Amino acid sequence: MGEPAGIGGEILLKAWASEGASLPLLFVIDDKHRLQKIADNLGLNIELTDYSADSAAWADRPEALRVVHSPLACHQPPGILVPENAKAVVASISRAVEMTQTGKAAGVVTNPIQKSALYQAGFPYPGHTEFLASLSDPAPVPVMMLACDQLRVVPVTIHLSLRDALTALSTDRIIEQTQITARALKRDFGIDNPHLAIAGLNPHAGEEGSMGTEEQTIIAPAIQALQQSGLNVSGPHPPDTLFSARARQTYDVAICMYHDQALIPIKTLDFDGGVNITLGLDFIRTSPDHGTALDIAGSGQASERSLVAAIRMAARMAAHRHNSKEPGND
Amino acid sequence: MGEPAGIGGEILLKAWASEGASLPLLFVIDDKHRLQKIADNLGLNIELTDYSADSAAWADRPEALRVVHSPLACHQPPGILVPENAKAVVASISRAVEMTQTGKAAGVVTNPIQKSALYQAGFPYPGHTEFLASLSDPAPVPVMMLACDQLRVVPVTIHLSLRDALTALSTDRIIEQTQITARALKRDFGIDNPHLAIAGLNPHAGEEGSMGTEEQTIIAPAIQALQQSGLNVSGPHPPDTLFSARARQTYDVAICMYHDQALIPIKTLDFDGGVNITLGLDFIRTSPDHGTALDIAGSGQASERSLVAAIRMAARMAAHRHNSKEPGND
Repeated sequence: MGEPAGIGGEILLKAWASEGASLPLLFVIDDKHRLQKIADNLGLNIELTDYSADSAAWADRPEALRVVHSPLACHQPPGILVPENAKAVVASISRAVEMTQTGKAAGVVTNPIQKSALYQAGFPYPGHTEFLASLSDPAPVPVMMLACDQLRVVPVTIHLSLRDALTALSTDRIIEQTQITARALKRDFGIDNPHLAIAGLNPHAGEEGSMGTEEQTIIAPAIQALQQSGLNVSGPHPPDTLFSARARQTYDVAICMYHDQALIPIKTLDFDGGVNITLGLDFIRTSPDHGTALDIAGSGQASERSLVAAIRMAARMAAHRHNSKEPGND
Repeated sequence: MGEPAGIGGEILLKAWASEGASLPLLFVIDDKHRLQKIADNLGLNIELTDYSADSAAWADRPEALRVVHSPLACHQPPGILVPENAKAVVASISRAVEMTQTGKAAGVVTNPIQKSALYQAGFPYPGHTEFLASLSDPAPVPVMMLACDQLRVVPVTIHLSLRDALTALSTDRIIEQTQITARALKRDFGIDNPHLAIAGLNPHAGEEGSMGTEEQTIIAPAIQALQQSGLNVSGPHPPDTLFSARARQTYDVAICMYHDQALIPIKTLDFDGGVNITLGLDFIRTSPDHGTALDIAGSGQASERSLVAAIRMAARMAAHRHNSKEPGND
């Protein structure tokens, strides 16, 4: 569902209207009446049908969008946060995760949530990802990966000021995030011996210490340890040249030192088609790489491309994980 | 000339061989014998002719590359720094600037230099740009702009570690660099009322102070002052979305807070075609956006695309400056 005041419902319906037949088998956990109203408002002729994992009744109507009805408490206009509905948002996430854990779904695709609305309703997690990690057993270190057709990136530090990111960066953190990423690339992306390119932090990767020393004191030791553990890791690479068309051909993922080092290149290359993937969970989770866009919710303007990419990505990952010979959850 | 151990000579000759006839009128300040040798080694059939601004003899041979002979002291093999030749490198730069100042050239295109080689020979400037600024009268604040077909960026702080860049960032610095950029866009790029988009520093531009406060304490006051001075300035913009295809349509230049915030998007978009432009000088100066590439010098592998773009850019800027109604040097 995601935040019901946002664009989640309409991008889902637009995705179904434009690509329904070609999308991987999916069902939606959302308020059926709300979806019907959005479809009517946008003039989308979409049939909704009740879905249950325990019955195959839905299979007779492949053209209908399958919905696990998750009712909202109150009337929900687009663009306006209704705190009474926060509970249903959280419930839809827990429900989705539970269905993957009981084998009734192969992965979870989450629509964007509005953190401030959930906080008001007592949501105790900093964000979506942390909540999802708490639903994994045992609770893992989640790793955020962003992917488009041309590039995959993992920011080692995420929602911190640039100043705090410099302080938070550590050899251990780089090692941990890189290892989780390497395992996920093998298991969920079918890449046997992934090449992980580690970015430097400073201009020109510090130019031998003349413009910063973190490459020598923090990043190089992580690279050494990772190489010794047998991983195909290179770097520290000068950040400005690491994302050129030529450089992108040489690695499977770029491990980045801070939020914008990762997000600038991917959003520069493909603003609408990027997917946000959480690695390290015991279930597959993808998400469109944008927010709730309250300002345009209800207008039908929002692009469904990132959600479509997130749905396809989750299905591909699920197929790889299913085929993977690696046992266990990590 | 640039560093004679580097790729400068060969990319110039490749540029002339592939695009000579279509390039703006140009002459080269370099060692004629060295260029001849490189052309022979690469199998490029290029005729060289002596050039003097005081004679039109060269005009009879438009197919010949015009060279102001600037002899090297010693034999110069590719890839190997020869300190005895540093003097000629510096002299070629001064000569080029002097010719623009005496009206014998419309602008300067510099090939990359190797700073370490020049330092050994007593060169007292941190880099190319600072040396060029010292040749301007009065010595200005130079501003570095990088441009490709899709994007122009100005990093407000440049060759500093990320940590030092955070410390160096100030309201005054943003104001000064933005003003110089705005004047140059009018005078040298023919953009009457340029829109300058100012980037934030932190993820999501700090999200109202929850991820860093520099947007509020340093950047917003600069934007306010610039707007009050009548400039068309917006921001602080979230850095990760500022360089998307859609966002790029909305501004003429992005003013960036640190080196990689500017260089990552431009090198992601166009690695070979980027041009480095120094704004704020009393002459026009462009440069290819790469280094001396000593490791591949002599092999002919280096792409001439950035040099060609730098030559064309200098000519376009000279035409705009010539046509500009704005008097004076700033």
